[in-house]
Amino acid sequence: MGMTMTQKILAAHAGLESVKPGDLIMADLDLVLGNDITSPVAINVFKNINKETVFDKDKVALVPDHFAPNKDIKAAEQCKQVRCFACEQDVTNYFEIGEMGVEHALLPEKGLVVAGDVVIGADSHTCTYGALGAFSTGVGSTDMAVGMATGKAWFKVPPAIKFNLSGAFKEGVSGKDLILHIIGMIGVDGALYKSMEFAGTGVSNLTMDDRFTIANMAIEAGGKNGIFPVDDKTIEYMKEHSTKEYRAFEADEDAEYDAVYNINLAEIKSTVAFPHLPENTKTVDEITEPVKIDQVVIGSCTNGRFSDFKKAADLMRGKHVAKGIRVLIIPATQQIYLDCMEAGYLKDFIEAGATVSTPTCGPCLGGHMGILAAGERCVSTTNRNFVGRMGHVDSEVYLASPEVAAASAILGRIAGPEEL
Amino acid sequence: MGMTMTQKILAAHAGLESVKPGDLIMADLDLVLGNDITSPVAINVFKNINKETVFDKDKVALVPDHFAPNKDIKAAEQCKQVRCFACEQDVTNYFEIGEMGVEHALLPEKGLVVAGDVVIGADSHTCTYGALGAFSTGVGSTDMAVGMATGKAWFKVPPAIKFNLSGAFKEGVSGKDLILHIIGMIGVDGALYKSMEFAGTGVSNLTMDDRFTIANMAIEAGGKNGIFPVDDKTIEYMKEHSTKEYRAFEADEDAEYDAVYNINLAEIKSTVAFPHLPENTKTVDEITEPVKIDQVVIGSCTNGRFSDFKKAADLMRGKHVAKGIRVLIIPATQQIYLDCMEAGYLKDFIEAGATVSTPTCGPCLGGHMGILAAGERCVSTTNRNFVGRMGHVDSEVYLASPEVAAASAILGRIAGPEEL
Repeated sequence: MGMTMTQKILAAHAGLESVKPGDLIMADLDLVLGNDITSPVAINVFKNINKETVFDKDKVALVPDHFAPNKDIKAAEQCKQVRCFACEQDVTNYFEIGEMGVEHALLPEKGLVVAGDVVIGADSHTCTYGALGAFSTGVGSTDMAVGMATGKAWFKVPPAIKFNLSGAFKEGVSGKDLILHIIGMIGVDGALYKSMEFAGTGVSNLTMDDRFTIANMAIEAGGKNGIFPVDDKTIEYMKEHSTKEYRAFEADEDAEYDAVYNINLAEIKSTVAFPHLPENTKTVDEITEPVKIDQVVIGSCTNGRFSDFKKAADLMRGKHVAKGIRVLIIPATQQIYLDCMEAGYLKDFIEAGATVSTPTCGPCLGGHMGILAAGERCVSTTNRNFVGRMGHVDSEVYLASPEVAAASAILGRIAGPEEL
Repeated sequence: MGMTMTQKILAAHAGLESVKPGDLIMADLDLVLGNDITSPVAINVFKNINKETVFDKDKVALVPDHFAPNKDIKAAEQCKQVRCFACEQDVTNYFEIGEMGVEHALLPEKGLVVAGDVVIGADSHTCTYGALGAFSTGVGSTDMAVGMATGKAWFKVPPAIKFNLSGAFKEGVSGKDLILHIIGMIGVDGALYKSMEFAGTGVSNLTMDDRFTIANMAIEAGGKNGIFPVDDKTIEYMKEHSTKEYRAFEADEDAEYDAVYNINLAEIKSTVAFPHLPENTKTVDEITEPVKIDQVVIGSCTNGRFSDFKKAADLMRGKHVAKGIRVLIIPATQQIYLDCMEAGYLKDFIEAGATVSTPTCGPCLGGHMGILAAGERCVSTTNRNFVGRMGHVDSEVYLASPEVAAASAILGRIAGPEEL
């Protein structure tokens, strides 16, 4: 039986000729990631393991991004613990305030992940790096601790679902709309412990940022990971950002998939996930009653990259946000912040009445920098709209693309970019 | 007996020919200010007063700046209450996220305060507007509520201390050094319930931003207010920012002062207030043992204006912050943010390894955006270094000028600008 791309990467990292779904394997890790919330727990576990040093100081990444810059004393103490551990262990890839960014935007930008890698991170959205043709997945803090100590992790080899893409997006539609469409179609458990493998002629029409967004939300369909084939765009991205050697794995012709979905990108429309699950999707043109909003957030590991802000700035430039709407622009990394500033986007946003935050996960997980009060509604380019995710249990989050977020900011209600 | 500048303003607003220290008077208010922490309390009190509307919807200013953008659910609820009240009462000067700034930088910038005004604000540092030749002072939320309802407030007319300034600052020294020097000299109760009246030939050598910084910290010497004479610079500033009519009051020749201090600005040196009181000052050249630091904050109502960032950027440009030091740059208003961006300062800061926050009071009062853990030390351009002010009770805050903060950021210890 042939193997999927994910299975091939896992087999290679386990030193095995082949693997099949359900196999329990031990794989070598190319990177172990933690943030300011998960690392303290992992560090405490690590200190109980009879191991003085991390397996490879170059293969651990510690990114204080969730409640940083420190939102309160507890956050300050957590960040301090991570900082001290990074210092003790001489961790190469510890990122302090000022060089910090949202972990899943930062690591690819810094070239720490390339095609063929196996990466675990104590954060659900570690699956983002599948965009680069890597196997990456979120784990608990205990697995992170053991990963830091041994450089290995066990996995149950996942079965796969194939998404066979064709065509190209219409103007105003992007990766977020596709992944929301998919989650709406298969449900939040539609890919439970499966790898979501993207393939087909449509892949080449997706930008790298589209792919990061799509892979990022694989977990929202329950996926173990999401993964894209390595093509010229992937190679160009890696050349620009990394000096690491990469390995481009390809699925076998006869690989088995639990299901195959054929999707024509040209048929995807602007899509919004209504409260309180990412699967609760509607296309914007299906919304009959105006949904008035209080806040818009553009940022996060899902949609906080340069092209996301370009799309939003192109729509908001010269216009003004609707009266009473708070609009938060949160570039995911310092480099993205600088690039957006150089391109004039930050000026466009501020002149349109938005506010620009320093990089942070902030409001996405109800951390800080834009928490919602009871009864408030937010259109957000983030990845989860669970009850109370961005604040009060009686607030509502609507997940959308940067294009929809920007149009909604200007119109004060959920709107598609073509309405501007 | 002649009157001081403060006494003349109070007399005019009380409809009296003259007042003397200790008189209890009722004065008309030109502006009543509240923020997201103090306004909710005031609004609750207001709703118990038998008054349906505020005395003048153009003379109330509501600025959610302390825990905004909302740091948590409680902050979100407080901001919501302020927002709803502003909407119900049709308050002209409510500032939403996106147009918001730190209140005491925002109000002068928006032209809401001019010379001769009487202003109360439910925030200690309302005394800032004395820079413009206004009488302004911090009050409790109850006084704010009554002020909103009636347009009046009672005052006990303060006696005065005169600071007779001559000369001009040396390079690298600015308003913050002067006010820290004064507080170090007279103590944190040195001007208790007195007006601190600045005068002399040296005043003309102070920029408006110097004056805002100096008046801002009058409260840190216990002062009821701080006030500057109106000169060409004041008039130029008001012309640029305001359409309100102003009145330039002058102290009588025979006004009485409890004390007169003569200060030659040329003799002022870079000065730092050590933990845990603003009076605990040392000049930088008196520091014998290196004071290593963890964080630097440049911002706040004290030193978050354009010229503050110019000074810091000029020192930090092309250099890099010391390893392990977190540097937070917080422009006080959206306009200052834009101006700093246009001038290239934000780029300078980010390239130097600092992070730039959206306008907020944030870390100054231990709110959010850079809270300190136990044992951490911060050099801050803010106004208070009380125990636990910026976070953990075992953290330390060193108050300083933007020049000292910038030099300290680069060197990783408290340093003067001449050390770079």
